[in-house]
Amino acid sequence: MRELRKNPLGEDWVVIAPQRGKRPDDYRSQEEGLSREEKGKCPFCPGNEKETPPEVFAFRAPGTLPDSPGWEVRVVPNKFAALEETEVSEEHRKGIFVSFGARGRHEVIIEDPAHGASYDTQEEAQLLKVFLAWQERLREAARKKDLKYTQIFKNYGKKAGASLAHPHSQLVSLPLVPAKVQAEMEKAESYRRFEGRCLFCALAEEEKERTVLKSADFVVFCPYFSRFPFETWVLPRRHLASFEEAAPETLFSLAAALKSLLGKMKALLGNPPYNLTLHTLPHGEERGAAFYHWHARILPQIATPAGFEWGTGFFINPVAPEEAAAFLRKGGEGD
Amino acid sequence: MRELRKNPLGEDWVVIAPQRGKRPDDYRSQEEGLSREEKGKCPFCPGNEKETPPEVFAFRAPGTLPDSPGWEVRVVPNKFAALEETEVSEEHRKGIFVSFGARGRHEVIIEDPAHGASYDTQEEAQLLKVFLAWQERLREAARKKDLKYTQIFKNYGKKAGASLAHPHSQLVSLPLVPAKVQAEMEKAESYRRFEGRCLFCALAEEEKERTVLKSADFVVFCPYFSRFPFETWVLPRRHLASFEEAAPETLFSLAAALKSLLGKMKALLGNPPYNLTLHTLPHGEERGAAFYHWHARILPQIATPAGFEWGTGFFINPVAPEEAAAFLRKGGEGD
Repeated sequence: MRELRKNPLGEDWVVIAPQRGKRPDDYRSQEEGLSREEKGKCPFCPGNEKETPPEVFAFRAPGTLPDSPGWEVRVVPNKFAALEETEVSEEHRKGIFVSFGARGRHEVIIEDPAHGASYDTQEEAQLLKVFLAWQERLREAARKKDLKYTQIFKNYGKKAGASLAHPHSQLVSLPLVPAKVQAEMEKAESYRRFEGRCLFCALAEEEKERTVLKSADFVVFCPYFSRFPFETWVLPRRHLASFEEAAPETLFSLAAALKSLLGKMKALLGNPPYNLTLHTLPHGEERGAAFYHWHARILPQIATPAGFEWGTGFFINPVAPEEAAAFLRKGGEGD
Repeated sequence: MRELRKNPLGEDWVVIAPQRGKRPDDYRSQEEGLSREEKGKCPFCPGNEKETPPEVFAFRAPGTLPDSPGWEVRVVPNKFAALEETEVSEEHRKGIFVSFGARGRHEVIIEDPAHGASYDTQEEAQLLKVFLAWQERLREAARKKDLKYTQIFKNYGKKAGASLAHPHSQLVSLPLVPAKVQAEMEKAESYRRFEGRCLFCALAEEEKERTVLKSADFVVFCPYFSRFPFETWVLPRRHLASFEEAAPETLFSLAAALKSLLGKMKALLGNPPYNLTLHTLPHGEERGAAFYHWHARILPQIATPAGFEWGTGFFINPVAPEEAAAFLRKGGEGD
């Protein structure tokens, strides 16, 4: 059974998604064996297209066939999807216990044919194609009335949750807007109402001391309230609520900003594992146009959230964001 | 500078706590070196008492001196405290940025003189002393009017955030009640008001299918809405809001329940890393007596929270709690 279950002590839901064929015993901690790709068979490498479900989108060389080599960026359903569009979108209640059908979407964006590529070494033109694929899939998801919110994210490195090293990001569409996202929207809306400007535009101006780099289109900073050491936000300087509406030139500029930031992190922090999360308006929330502002967050996984964080929801960050920013500023262009 | 900083997009605060003498460069990912204790000098072992700040509480043999061997359980301030009672409890605002003095308390409870002890192998009588020390320090913190909430937790294993292997737990007292704790209180209060009974008492009865073990005093279950694989709650069957008020016999029974559960986990899951969090009423919140109910949560760290979790606040759990409970039930008494 796969479903969303409500936490009766909060506003969050848990996605219960047992993996086909896995038994509890498979979660036994043990010396980690070689993953499929280390055994010489990476399911994301060209030539192994049959190892993934059929592609739903790709940038590929003219004349090449779907699910064959020749692609530059390839989007496929996640073989171990947490949610699927075949599930029924319906709420069930049984006493305290409330569940909702795990109807949704879980896709993988394979970001480069080269197994060893990473954002800091990929060309801007290649990253542009990754971001165009994100836009395309976000727009596609927005057309389904059952999908209310789509989270795009990238897990880089084992400690950040990546199970395969081949460069990829993921997309999960949910049948409801998460309370955390809703709360961020409400905070931004209320700031707009009381202060007369966008909260994110205000951050772009006021995070001066914590700015790592600034280009014509982006400001990159370690926020005042960073939960993770070296947490860094990449924020477009021009107000725009939806990532889907960003112009290709802006995406090219995003590629340059990320490349530079991640190059610095690799050089200065020793190739740290990180999570990237993309924040954009939930589907169909046009009223957010004035107060929301899309951006990406890079969350290096250097410290380990532990009992204190799980118990209180507060994070302890051992690196002051001012120092993190000053340290990252010192680094060269990351090459 | 050490302070609490408000997240302008939520209700949570971040504890910014740079460690004395550490520079950003020290967070560089690298082959992990030997920790102090592996080099033969564990600061928590008897004989090394001078390696920690002076003890604030201990159970020790009659006639032995503070900060010398002879203790059974020893409580000391954390040498790398995230909060301290010397900080000023005051709010500061500068535009979007809001901070609060990091006034508080951060202590370590050294749970056994034996370096290699763990809950599953320690005697009930020894664990009883650990829990009595928790009670004592909670009561002490409650007497300080600036401390509003105390989180007790234990990080076991490196992947769960432990930096030293010697058995220990920690206590952090905060100058405000975390929004997450406040929200759990409100949910429990509202359930009590509408359903006429305590939400946790209801769980104790209704989690049947997901019960791992049941003793005269405790029910141990994998909650319906588990965020982590094999997440397990240990809940007293008799309604009581505050852990501080639990009778010694109840604590003895808690020791037995935890010993049995963690023995099963060690045997069946290969000594998994875990976080334990203790949940009890915030200080001075006597009005919670009817609707709150203390308990402990064991959160094995087998899966890695990643981009999806950080972006949405929803967790993906690949093990259905029903299967987790059935699997743990099968295990013997853990010895």
